[in-house]
Amino acid sequence: MAVERSSKSVVEKNRYYIKGFQFSAVEAAIKKPGRLDLALIFADKPAQAVGVFTSNRVKAAPVIISQNHLRGGTAQAILVNSGNANACTGESGLKDAARSAEKLAGHLGLDGSAVLVASTGVIGQPLPMEKMEKSLPGLVRGLSPDRLPDVSRAILTTDKVPKVAYRRGKVGGAGISLLAVAKGAGMIMPNMATMLCFVMTDADISARALKKSLRNAVSFSFNRITVDGDMSTNDSVYLMAGGAAGNRPVTLETEKERFFFESLLTDLLTELAKAIVRDGEGAKKLVEIKVTGASAGNEAKKVAYAVANSPLVKTAFNGEDANWGRIMAAIGRSGVSIRPEQIRISFDSVSLVENGLGCGLSAEQAATEIMRKDEFALLIDLGRGNSGYNVWTCDFSKEYIEINGSYRT
Amino acid sequence: MAVERSSKSVVEKNRYYIKGFQFSAVEAAIKKPGRLDLALIFADKPAQAVGVFTSNRVKAAPVIISQNHLRGGTAQAILVNSGNANACTGESGLKDAARSAEKLAGHLGLDGSAVLVASTGVIGQPLPMEKMEKSLPGLVRGLSPDRLPDVSRAILTTDKVPKVAYRRGKVGGAGISLLAVAKGAGMIMPNMATMLCFVMTDADISARALKKSLRNAVSFSFNRITVDGDMSTNDSVYLMAGGAAGNRPVTLETEKERFFFESLLTDLLTELAKAIVRDGEGAKKLVEIKVTGASAGNEAKKVAYAVANSPLVKTAFNGEDANWGRIMAAIGRSGVSIRPEQIRISFDSVSLVENGLGCGLSAEQAATEIMRKDEFALLIDLGRGNSGYNVWTCDFSKEYIEINGSYRT
Repeated sequence: MAVERSSKSVVEKNRYYIKGFQFSAVEAAIKKPGRLDLALIFADKPAQAVGVFTSNRVKAAPVIISQNHLRGGTAQAILVNSGNANACTGESGLKDAARSAEKLAGHLGLDGSAVLVASTGVIGQPLPMEKMEKSLPGLVRGLSPDRLPDVSRAILTTDKVPKVAYRRGKVGGAGISLLAVAKGAGMIMPNMATMLCFVMTDADISARALKKSLRNAVSFSFNRITVDGDMSTNDSVYLMAGGAAGNRPVTLETEKERFFFESLLTDLLTELAKAIVRDGEGAKKLVEIKVTGASAGNEAKKVAYAVANSPLVKTAFNGEDANWGRIMAAIGRSGVSIRPEQIRISFDSVSLVENGLGCGLSAEQAATEIMRKDEFALLIDLGRGNSGYNVWTCDFSKEYIEINGSYRT
Repeated sequence: MAVERSSKSVVEKNRYYIKGFQFSAVEAAIKKPGRLDLALIFADKPAQAVGVFTSNRVKAAPVIISQNHLRGGTAQAILVNSGNANACTGESGLKDAARSAEKLAGHLGLDGSAVLVASTGVIGQPLPMEKMEKSLPGLVRGLSPDRLPDVSRAILTTDKVPKVAYRRGKVGGAGISLLAVAKGAGMIMPNMATMLCFVMTDADISARALKKSLRNAVSFSFNRITVDGDMSTNDSVYLMAGGAAGNRPVTLETEKERFFFESLLTDLLTELAKAIVRDGEGAKKLVEIKVTGASAGNEAKKVAYAVANSPLVKTAFNGEDANWGRIMAAIGRSGVSIRPEQIRISFDSVSLVENGLGCGLSAEQAATEIMRKDEFALLIDLGRGNSGYNVWTCDFSKEYIEINGSYRT
């Protein structure tokens, strides 16, 4: 079972296609002129469809509308805009989200509930409905199997690079593909982020098997990344399965096949999750925080996030300073009853702390060398048990402040 | 009962005295040359003494040693160094802390347990014992009732300004004074911070009454401030009562008198707590987050800290951007089952959000005017009940990153 892997930045052109789906994007003038800001993903026939959404109590209108539309487990189109989050917009925001789905459905000859919607951008401003509605005919006319790259750009806000990933594998006797596009950048914190991700597969798979696979895959990928500890009102991951691959249908009953599908999906989403952190606002470093030796998984998770979200640790990453004291201090305030003298810390393979004590100047110098890299791992062993957890985080830079101090101006 | 209040920045000279205490500070070359870094507070006779310490599981050696020395409820001297935290230094760090207390005690003719110690600075490096011991005779020789200003400078790390506060009141039939000196700046998050505070009073008050008063006062002051969500290994607040004021002794049994003492102390520590946030690393704004309408105090606290520690909210403060969507998003991810449509947000007296919806552009402009001030309040009403909580926080600036990316270099 070969798993092909797309390269990180430049996705080969033939990796942008997936059987049974078409794409389109236009400038609707929601963002500044000259930027694509309205995108459409269209399945040639009704697809099995599921979603995973923000756990923020303040949910954007498109999240609420799409959760409703997904009740039947099918969908055929996703309408996405950037530049406006349609969040904190009350009843009129809900009406706008529902109306944009209805209007698009009209152009596509579908029922409104077959359209999912997603928005990202500034919170609290009404969706510019006139601009959007005027743009829908052109958006539909532009549908083409080769325009995923336009979608990948149209959904960006403060992201610097588009994020696309691709996997192939053999499931249920046939080769199947998974193609996904994501945006992230700020407000990144589980559960998920100001993070949108749209996954298309040609596999024939039931909505219930899709749902289980997506939940699990997200828990190992998007729910393990943090840029700034903030969680968005709009986070959504959509997964549509068109079924054009011709495999034997995957269901909850064919657990082995379902699990292999889930593995491909997890691998795909992990690539995108890491790409989102790497492209975190102002980020220069991708750091995996790996906590081991915890007495329970939840304990490991608390420590991992205490470290991953510590501004002092993140600024030390930025300054390439092997300041293990800040790491010890973050571990100590995590709420876990750690014992300092049992703690080991290393950067990649360089031990920095043993038994809670620094390993000396030469170890710090070696660790500083590791920190010069764009990507490295920070390993923390609590010496208490056998549970672990990992989180991807980034450094905290002056650019983050610049971007977020003036985001709306 | 008149309560005199010291001005914020310039404390009048006669406010630096308190009956029964002497002060000294020297350059011990722990920090860079030309900076005071070793300080001594001395009570003319054994004082009732209590402390409140960091709840970080990784506790610095001076914290552990001082907790031990405080068991008897008395002390006569406090030895403080900056430039080195003596944290994560294991057994030898404990020995160094104990030895520095012993050595100073020898010069003062005291028992080692009458000396409390405190350290602040870089974590994980051995205390420079030779430099410290060599400096002790000069430190003791320098003792004088008028040298608190030197102490206030000697304990600073990245603080920009010394922090001293003073209160007078009438307790137990006599005028009593409280004088306190503090340092803060980074790693500020309850419970407390890389925060040291030393409080002297001439009141005659029992150790148990002192302890209760200090715990309560800290919970309303230092435990309600946050600069970056990080909690230090060294946080300590010491309180020594010399008894020279000649008041009727205050005890747990004279609750009314004790409570008045506590009120003075709370007021004193609140002034210093706010001064610490105002002087937070890179901070330009002091913002009080006031949450009301919660169904329980703990709920209000969760919301207050979610907002106060949100990098996106804090960068918006820095950019003077009335970005209430970020505030709504932070409230939504606080873990409290809020209902967006019940939420009201205002800056000082300017309403920005009603029923979870923005109040429009003119409200945002008025709120932006408020945000231009150095100090303002952000009021959040959850519309669920009668409980509240308040926290002081600051903005997040590029300078914070600069300071912390290169702290050790």
